[in-house]
Amino acid sequence: MTQPRSMMKIGINMVQNGGHSSGWRHLDADPDIANDFEGYARIIKMAEDAKIHFVFLADGAAVRIPHSNAEELSYHGHIDRFEPLTLLAALAAITSKIGLICTASTTYNEPYTLARKYASLDHISHGRAGWNLVTGWSEDESLNFNRDTLMEHAQRYARANEFVDVVTGLWDSFDDDAFIANKASGQYFRPEGMHVLNHQGEFYKVRGPLNLRRSPQGHPVIAQAGSSVPGRDLGARVADIIYTGQKDLQLAQEFFADMKARVAAAGRDPSQVLVMPGLMPIIGATEAEAQARMAELKSLVHPEVGMQLISKTFGDLSHLDPEDPVPLPLPESNGVKSARDQWERRLREKPMTVRQVYEEISLSSGHCVVCGTVETIADHMQRWFESGACDGWNLMAPYFPSGAEDFITKLIPELKRRGIFHREYEGETLRANLGLNPVPDLKNKSNDGRSKSDDRISMSN
Amino acid sequence: MTQPRSMMKIGINMVQNGGHSSGWRHLDADPDIANDFEGYARIIKMAEDAKIHFVFLADGAAVRIPHSNAEELSYHGHIDRFEPLTLLAALAAITSKIGLICTASTTYNEPYTLARKYASLDHISHGRAGWNLVTGWSEDESLNFNRDTLMEHAQRYARANEFVDVVTGLWDSFDDDAFIANKASGQYFRPEGMHVLNHQGEFYKVRGPLNLRRSPQGHPVIAQAGSSVPGRDLGARVADIIYTGQKDLQLAQEFFADMKARVAAAGRDPSQVLVMPGLMPIIGATEAEAQARMAELKSLVHPEVGMQLISKTFGDLSHLDPEDPVPLPLPESNGVKSARDQWERRLREKPMTVRQVYEEISLSSGHCVVCGTVETIADHMQRWFESGACDGWNLMAPYFPSGAEDFITKLIPELKRRGIFHREYEGETLRANLGLNPVPDLKNKSNDGRSKSDDRISMSN
Ligand SMILES: Cc1cc2nc3c(=O)[nH]c(=O)nc-3n(C[C@H](O)[C@H](O)[C@H](O)COP(=O)(O)O)c2cc1C
Ligand SMILES: Cc1cc2nc3c(=O)[nH]c(=O)nc-3n(C[C@H](O)[C@H](O)[C@H](O)COP(=O)(O)O)c2cc1C
Repeated sequence: MTQPRSMMKIGINMVQNGGHSSGWRHLDADPDIANDFEGYARIIKMAEDAKIHFVFLADGAAVRIPHSNAEELSYHGHIDRFEPLTLLAALAAITSKIGLICTASTTYNEPYTLARKYASLDHISHGRAGWNLVTGWSEDESLNFNRDTLMEHAQRYARANEFVDVVTGLWDSFDDDAFIANKASGQYFRPEGMHVLNHQGEFYKVRGPLNLRRSPQGHPVIAQAGSSVPGRDLGARVADIIYTGQKDLQLAQEFFADMKARVAAAGRDPSQVLVMPGLMPIIGATEAEAQARMAELKSLVHPEVGMQLISKTFGDLSHLDPEDPVPLPLPESNGVKSARDQWERRLREKPMTVRQVYEEISLSSGHCVVCGTVETIADHMQRWFESGACDGWNLMAPYFPSGAEDFITKLIPELKRRGIFHREYEGETLRANLGLNPVPDLKNKSNDGRSKSDDRISMSN
Repeated sequence: MTQPRSMMKIGINMVQNGGHSSGWRHLDADPDIANDFEGYARIIKMAEDAKIHFVFLADGAAVRIPHSNAEELSYHGHIDRFEPLTLLAALAAITSKIGLICTASTTYNEPYTLARKYASLDHISHGRAGWNLVTGWSEDESLNFNRDTLMEHAQRYARANEFVDVVTGLWDSFDDDAFIANKASGQYFRPEGMHVLNHQGEFYKVRGPLNLRRSPQGHPVIAQAGSSVPGRDLGARVADIIYTGQKDLQLAQEFFADMKARVAAAGRDPSQVLVMPGLMPIIGATEAEAQARMAELKSLVHPEVGMQLISKTFGDLSHLDPEDPVPLPLPESNGVKSARDQWERRLREKPMTVRQVYEEISLSSGHCVVCGTVETIADHMQRWFESGACDGWNLMAPYFPSGAEDFITKLIPELKRRGIFHREYEGETLRANLGLNPVPDLKNKSNDGRSKSDDRISMSN
């Protein structure tokens, strides 16, 4: 089941109306797709036919555009989106192979609820579920959850570390073979196969067990998308996939090497943690056509939207003209620290105007945009993959559906032709398809082979 | 679209392995169905073919059996269940007409998250979503959510009242026609169609708006399942369906009249709130066959399971023998007060042994069990319906799949033959099929026809 490292992994990143915040304005865009389940379903089925490893859904529990009133907000195409786990569950019923990964924040959820939901999705999809663990970055979310401010960065990560341990602990509530449903004896499960968590930590108190048998993957795949030091360390300790925004080959190689070293330092096998940056391909029949497409996409950005987006990372710049240079230093960020630091580094080397920055952010929210023919884009992907910058990609479309159809029908076949993308799903579960080892249950995890039942704690209360 | 009152409404109540806690032991039961999405899917499709109004999923976020250790628990068939909203989303993708109602507690969820999830389900299912609002009753749940005890009854309902107002407020974040996606102007929605909630109450602070356009039903259907006075008042104020456990015709008539009076007192139309008790039909070709079936089902209850179940309402009775009479008075309940009060009343009139009580609870957890031929069961349903005891039924099967197949293929056709159950879905949404009026958006709700946009509050923060 192990796959040669020569094969890159690919996910399709579905974001409401597309990765480009103004992509919905494109002539070819279906501007209602954010709200169209059947539209999503068609794209996912195409992606599955092309053997894309997983669909990936970002999330935010708010209209996350600060410093805005309704007039300004109204130009923004990233307003309406389905709650992603609800959407993935529906997509699970009409697909059979493609992985289903979505985002949920440790800052605004309860671990018991989250553990149940992903385990349920893993059951319903027969082993295709994944959780993109985030701690959030926007003030706007906190205002929807009884808070006045975004929780502080260090505390968000402290909670996230405890949260994920509770979740994985709950996923191990029962051994894989605990449920026997013996009609004659009346025994529904073997009591020694149940493990009550009894977690009492700094932030959470959760007794368990989960009211659900262990799911096909045992632990649904965990992705992690924070790139600050605490984010990297959390990822190194618990994640199967590191999702990241990387635009520069050398920085990406540094990030890749750093992540793999942290994984090794955490006592895990570096090949078992996949670093997968986002990438938005802008495909043309010729380089010139691709460049024209990119320019067209940039021209769609309404200045109001640009100013809103830039303020996420750069603070309020509404007093500036779009043609003014971005002033340095950037304000300290309690949100996405890694994005702030990358911009600071870039702008120190080469100043940019407010408009140049917001056009870039608007296009792909911090991810690499590669513009060219199928060949030159595949070259780029292959170069990064083969030079230790990534294990694969999370592909983004500027708008739907044709932005995604483009890379599914043109780019993916080229990668297959080059022998750097698989032609068939390797296994039955997302873990197997990603070349990740199974996660044994508690009984099989114990080194001495001794059943853990002796540690079982009575539930009497 | 209004339907004659001569037509009863019917839901199918899906509970893990069936309504009977030991039904999985029956020869015909599929004991793995709690964990089998395709098994659920087959039953729901049958129910849809039979024009059953909705599927209804109860829920609990815990293994909810107190005073137990793993050995005792292991006899219990109600241990594993899918998280219900995840399950309903998957079922939405493979059905097109049947309503999809599931339970979520106001005690352990955040209103923003819950509003998003049900609105998303309503979108994905094109207007078939419903929320069964509960405040919970079990200590065991509280132990999974950072608490040491179940929150006090009055406080649970105070929070529930505020919670539901936040949820419905968020569902009205946008007018139905707010989203215009005007590619030329770049305007994605009309700003005057957005309404920011800015809720600041005793328990919740939620700014809004929901990051999702208004869903097909506007407000997904709300069911309410608490029967204490605060529960009834909450239901009268906000619910479309009252789900209740009623075993005695006269008490059911009293409950029905009381609920309709409370609805009228709350300024609403009593015909717009449907009282739907649970009912478990045990069908035989003859009365004798049905009675034998019932006796067989009762005999499946392992005494450990019986003792666990009885303790939910009666406190710990483990010091008693199953043949001992249940001692009165019953302990005061912080859980399901209405169940405690009904039992107290019944046992004062006619004492029962511990075994008799737990066999009854085990069979249907407090719902009416009607045992007989298709004709006598239909008689019972018709009598209750026509004598002001209910607007319809939430049908339960003791086990799956054949327990449900029985009533879908035998009982439902009889009700159609009698002209008291519809032969076709009347409309496109669950509301329409239940004969409930649409819920207008805020713009259309304002009496003077004036747009609410003047009240819109800027989101600047
Ligand atoms: C590539 C990438 C994708 C992310 N996706 C999301 C997302 O979908 N939802 C979200 O709330 N946060 C998302 N985040 C932010 C994470 O929540 C993370 O907690 C935040 O970046 C702060 O951590 P950091 O400073 O370690 O990056 C993402 C971050 C990155 C770098
Ligand atoms: C018919 C019926 C069904 C119920 N279903 C659920 C359920 O699925 N999950 C749950 O947590 N509580 C359920 N409850 C309990 C409600 O949570 C309610 O909050 C509880 O009964 C306490 O309120 P009460 O004293 O008003 O009945 C149900 C109650 C009744 C009467």
